Amino acid sequence: MKHAKKPLRTRVLIGAGVAAAVAAGTAGVLSANATETEPAAAVTEAAAENLRETSHLTVDAATKAAQAALDAAEKENQRITVAVVDRNGNTIVTLRGDGAGPQSYESAERKAYTAVSWNAPTSELVKRLEQAPNLKDIPGTLFLGGGAPVAEEGTPIAGIGVAGAPSGELDEKFAKAGVAALGQ
Amino acid sequence: MKHAKKPLRTRVLIGAGVAAAVAAGTAGVLSANATETEPAAAVTEAAAENLRETSHLTVDAATKAAQAALDAAEKENQRITVAVVDRNGNTIVTLRGDGAGPQSYESAERKAYTAVSWNAPTSELVKRLEQAPNLKDIPGTLFLGGGAPVAEEGTPIAGIGVAGAPSGELDEKFAKAGVAALGQ
Amino acid sequence: MKHAKKPLRTRVLIGAGVAAAVAAGTAGVLSANATETEPAAAVTEAAAENLRETSHLTVDAATKAAQAALDAAEKENQRITVAVVDRNGNTIVTLRGDGAGPQSYESAERKAYTAVSWNAPTSELVKRLEQAPNLKDIPGTLFLGGGAPVAEEGTPIAGIGVAGAPSGELDEKFAKAGVAALGQ
Amino acid sequence: MKHAKKPLRTRVLIGAGVAAAVAAGTAGVLSANATETEPAAAVTEAAAENLRETSHLTVDAATKAAQAALDAAEKENQRITVAVVDRNGNTIVTLRGDGAGPQSYESAERKAYTAVSWNAPTSELVKRLEQAPNLKDIPGTLFLGGGAPVAEEGTPIAGIGVAGAPSGELDEKFAKAGVAALGQ
Amino acid sequence: MKHAKKPLRTRVLIGAGVAAAVAAGTAGVLSANATETEPAAAVTEAAAENLRETSHLTVDAATKAAQAALDAAEKENQRITVAVVDRNGNTIVTLRGDGAGPQSYESAERKAYTAVSWNAPTSELVKRLEQAPNLKDIPGTLFLGGGAPVAEEGTPIAGIGVAGAPSGELDEKFAKAGVAALGQ
Amino acid sequence: MKHAKKPLRTRVLIGAGVAAAVAAGTAGVLSANATETEPAAAVTEAAAENLRETSHLTVDAATKAAQAALDAAEKENQRITVAVVDRNGNTIVTLRGDGAGPQSYESAERKAYTAVSWNAPTSELVKRLEQAPNLKDIPGTLFLGGGAPVAEEGTPIAGIGVAGAPSGELDEKFAKAGVAALGQ
Amino acid sequence: MKHAKKPLRTRVLIGAGVAAAVAAGTAGVLSANATETEPAAAVTEAAAENLRETSHLTVDAATKAAQAALDAAEKENQRITVAVVDRNGNTIVTLRGDGAGPQSYESAERKAYTAVSWNAPTSELVKRLEQAPNLKDIPGTLFLGGGAPVAEEGTPIAGIGVAGAPSGELDEKFAKAGVAALGQ
Amino acid sequence: MKHAKKPLRTRVLIGAGVAAAVAAGTAGVLSANATETEPAAAVTEAAAENLRETSHLTVDAATKAAQAALDAAEKENQRITVAVVDRNGNTIVTLRGDGAGPQSYESAERKAYTAVSWNAPTSELVKRLEQAPNLKDIPGTLFLGGGAPVAEEGTPIAGIGVAGAPSGELDEKFAKAGVAALGQ
Repeated sequence: MKHAKKPLRTRVLIGAGVAAAVAAGTAGVLSANATETEPAAAVTEAAAENLRETSHLTVDAATKAAQAALDAAEKENQRITVAVVDRNGNTIVTLRGDGAGPQSYESAERKAYTAVSWNAPTSELVKRLEQAPNLKDIPGTLFLGGGAPVAEEGTPIAGIGVAGAPSGELDEKFAKAGVAALGQ
Repeated sequence: MKHAKKPLRTRVLIGAGVAAAVAAGTAGVLSANATETEPAAAVTEAAAENLRETSHLTVDAATKAAQAALDAAEKENQRITVAVVDRNGNTIVTLRGDGAGPQSYESAERKAYTAVSWNAPTSELVKRLEQAPNLKDIPGTLFLGGGAPVAEEGTPIAGIGVAGAPSGELDEKFAKAGVAALGQ
Repeated sequence: MKHAKKPLRTRVLIGAGVAAAVAAGTAGVLSANATETEPAAAVTEAAAENLRETSHLTVDAATKAAQAALDAAEKENQRITVAVVDRNGNTIVTLRGDGAGPQSYESAERKAYTAVSWNAPTSELVKRLEQAPNLKDIPGTLFLGGGAPVAEEGTPIAGIGVAGAPSGELDEKFAKAGVAALGQ
Repeated sequence: MKHAKKPLRTRVLIGAGVAAAVAAGTAGVLSANATETEPAAAVTEAAAENLRETSHLTVDAATKAAQAALDAAEKENQRITVAVVDRNGNTIVTLRGDGAGPQSYESAERKAYTAVSWNAPTSELVKRLEQAPNLKDIPGTLFLGGGAPVAEEGTPIAGIGVAGAPSGELDEKFAKAGVAALGQ
Repeated sequence: MKHAKKPLRTRVLIGAGVAAAVAAGTAGVLSANATETEPAAAVTEAAAENLRETSHLTVDAATKAAQAALDAAEKENQRITVAVVDRNGNTIVTLRGDGAGPQSYESAERKAYTAVSWNAPTSELVKRLEQAPNLKDIPGTLFLGGGAPVAEEGTPIAGIGVAGAPSGELDEKFAKAGVAALGQ
Repeated sequence: MKHAKKPLRTRVLIGAGVAAAVAAGTAGVLSANATETEPAAAVTEAAAENLRETSHLTVDAATKAAQAALDAAEKENQRITVAVVDRNGNTIVTLRGDGAGPQSYESAERKAYTAVSWNAPTSELVKRLEQAPNLKDIPGTLFLGGGAPVAEEGTPIAGIGVAGAPSGELDEKFAKAGVAALGQ
Repeated sequence: MKHAKKPLRTRVLIGAGVAAAVAAGTAGVLSANATETEPAAAVTEAAAENLRETSHLTVDAATKAAQAALDAAEKENQRITVAVVDRNGNTIVTLRGDGAGPQSYESAERKAYTAVSWNAPTSELVKRLEQAPNLKDIPGTLFLGGGAPVAEEGTPIAGIGVAGAPSGELDEKFAKAGVAALGQ
Repeated sequence: MKHAKKPLRTRVLIGAGVAAAVAAGTAGVLSANATETEPAAAVTEAAAENLRETSHLTVDAATKAAQAALDAAEKENQRITVAVVDRNGNTIVTLRGDGAGPQSYESAERKAYTAVSWNAPTSELVKRLEQAPNLKDIPGTLFLGGGAPVAEEGTPIAGIGVAGAPSGELDEKFAKAGVAALGQ
């Protein structure tokens, strides 16, 4: 995360100013929305050192990767689910493949989560349990082959998890097909 | 669910036969898989009246619909998440759009779940609360505009939920764009 | 899931048309309902390739199987709970037998879930843990004897789980009695 | 709960004696079992005043009631789920009817739970919210028509909950058909 | 559960009659109540074969047992929590001793739950894991010394769980002191 | 929380020294324990200003109060559950009264939690919802009569919650009987 | 999120290369770690259009803001908890103030989550419920005064939530003191 | 917890008196508050033996310790999260360090919880699993290096947990740096 800091003109809006804008723009039936209102007139300038930036896959890239994993599985007649999870632990994309078992959905998410947490394929992480067997007790993780990390300049930014094929090797092969689609 | 019953030659495999096949075919690192093994030699025939069939969107169709919803939102500069849920309540596809708020992910899933449960747009279902306000206490539901049902011959088969735009009207407009993509 | 596609006349109703029908038909105290409304006048035709079909046990068949498992246990003076779970991971039937321990209810559901996920008896699946011990960390599963799968032409469609007898062998014997009832 | 106390010969086994019996009788693959071992030689006698008794529906009775509710719904072409919950809050039987919506399963359980908690039909309990609106915030409850209580000499012993029909009135009609089956 | 059936005069009230009584008796601010109303005039008679009875510790007995466990621990200067759980899996009494660790509360409940589920001290149950290691994955259980069962004529009716002392042996000694108090 | 600070000789043990002591003292089957080891030889002195003290009911006092509430209910033939929760939100004592409904257990805990959080009887807190209706959405709370606070010099130290009687007024009467027992 | 795209030299590491590096660098007792390994020799170049960047408060900035909120409350003798949540919904900092009620911890997190989700103070968001009352059913939210958003160029990047003071107005005053500290 | 009892002038306010004060002082938009009202005129005196006192880190001390842990990690270029949990199991402070993995947040809390529960560093507690392997199944715990206890005169009062570095040894080194900051 050695990205250059943003220039000093960066402004951090405080609540009061934003609130005014928000209160104005709402009509009709409201929903679970995340409005990006027009900046209010006078806002407090935030010192730039309060901010850092992180990289994420776009939803288009994550979908492309997930579909590549699904395609790779389909070529081998395997029924899988694929998930893409970002470095914040949030799921970006899930695709539950036709005929994939009910257990594959959460398995795929957890493999992706595990891969991005440690920045390594889950098949490698399984080996770490020899030294630290209780790593697998960390909530949200799953130590089974099928998860592959995506990194940017060495920093993990996402994980791709696949579940449903008869072996973790196969699952991970498909997950890596998803990662490969990001390099093209 | 008035589909014709499957013909009598339908076989239901019992556990014992299947187990033999399963035990044979497993090599390498195993995973969260759902193998479909070769049918074992002798299996019990199930009377066809034990079975019924249900229709589902393919993952390809669900992805197409979700992307159509995302595209519709993007055209209006809205940041949303979209989810497709089937009639069993299982999520088939989620796409978390770039910049969508953290609350949009579960909101989209719940709107989709609500729409497929009652086979109606969630903006319509909100009106039902006037008569039965506690419908909204049913676990997994969310009574906010933004969910649209998909039906086949009147039977609900899926729901599409969108969350993140500044109003439920907008969310539902995008969800319906997703539904429309299935009719083409 | 190589079922033939449905013919092209299949229609997928979009939300708008359905909504009108739904809004009309509701009177009295509303509830958690899943109305199947009359098809509205003009609906979008869905291309048939958007759909796939899956097989399920009817509730009558699942109840018959569960009762057969309970009867088999009663003959041997065992107090058990039995559950039938479909391929979507949803529970279809539970019967908590008289005097069965409190732990048996969720155990039965999880064994059924595990059997249908991997399409194998759970006593076989326990053996897989030798190679992939963390399979048992997948949420919703339980790797103990007592679960038996139900398949149709090799495709898993349900699992039957039994818990409460003094050994997994006994539990699974009763579960298989439930499966056998489906072949008659 | 004015049942006569059990006679003084009642014995409460302490852990040590039971443990011996348990340790002996276990062979084969163990499971989630609740063995009822032979009483060990010497056990502590418990004073009878430490005990009270409660009544429960047998699993056979609960299944009969659930099926009666399902049958009543089928006659009116309604797709529902039915649940029977005992006075301890434990589910005894669930039957997910063919085509019932995904929301109906937990709705049925909660209606049954609510009916047995307050010993009244849920359609009556909805009216109580006028005076105490936050009753509905109690975990596990659902204040919608469709739940009916079963009592023995005025003491609640079970609740039957139905969900999935287009109105709570219909749901409760079916639930009461289930209750009625217990009086025959 | 070989208790004699109740005599045929047993009545099972159906919902309608009970509802009338309930609707009458409620005034003031309502609460989470479980009224036992006067039997309504005409009620459906239930065939006695629909009912079975189970035994429970009274709350007074359970409290006496829990305090005996706490007293035994205090004599040895140990800081513990004690829980009493019935055969339905419901907690009857908890006492969090002064200075007991935060982990002791749920540990005590789970040990009690485990002991009543298998009708054996948890120190014995730990040994069963040699043959069926995944028993410990059953939700709600904890396979650590400190739980002791209470049985009536061989049938488990409650478990007492203690946690917080430096060893499971000590915890179980205190739990058994609780059981012993029931035999006096 | 204006208690005088502890004198300066107060020592805060750091992990390393404690660890040595802990490693020594463990034999037999270990459990969920919270050993209080002998202080190691050399420990870091903590500046006293790092510490503050809080008051708690002893488990004996909390049990006395809970039993007083139960007794008060029994005198009026009401079946209730009572819970005592401390200012940290932890439950100290629960007593599930004979015949109390299944909903009463968690209701009692939540009423106690609510009373100690706002240092007021829950019947008073219900009135606050007129101005801030969403207070009741705070996790763990329940805004129904039946909870009463315990304070020491104006600072809340515990809450007593009762549930199961036909009205919140009755529940709260019993809760206050519990509080009153602490003043004797 | 109109930040300029990163230059084309950006590389996305695929799993295989990273795995090698990870496998090398691990010694000693492993833990829940997120290693940033040296980039492996040959990695796939990712097209830059796969990435987008988001802004976050540094942990130092978030701590500074949280402490400012706590200080503001202390000046008015109020006992509160403060939380800072980022735009991904993850909590960055929590400070549970001395003597704050048990309900304040999760309340503060939820207010912060709500403020960053809709980019508005929660006191403003409460008003939106007049039009869309079910917004408050979205999981993770709390519609009570006390949450204030932090934005950068109009885009929400964090929320600060405060709970524990006698009114939402006071809570929000302290939250805004936290926001103000970021502008200096 | 051998602290001297408080003197007899200690008063425990009962609900009624407090309620009056509370009802008076509330104006404006209410919130999740924990008012400390003025003592009412006449209050019941509580016998001092009903009370005991416990020691806690102040929020200032806990923050100082957490920042010291974060600083120690930063010096070694490690990205971690740190949590401080008190003896009641409540989290006092969390600081999610810049770039720490998503799994580190809950890991840190659980390590802290584990350390304070057993009053030992988690690296020591891992060794206890050789004798009692199921200790790690206690909810809320994590048996991985990285947690360090804080004690006062041998009594545990808090735990500090760190997660995110490449080994548990490193994590625990940073946690102990946090503990050390309390002794200065």
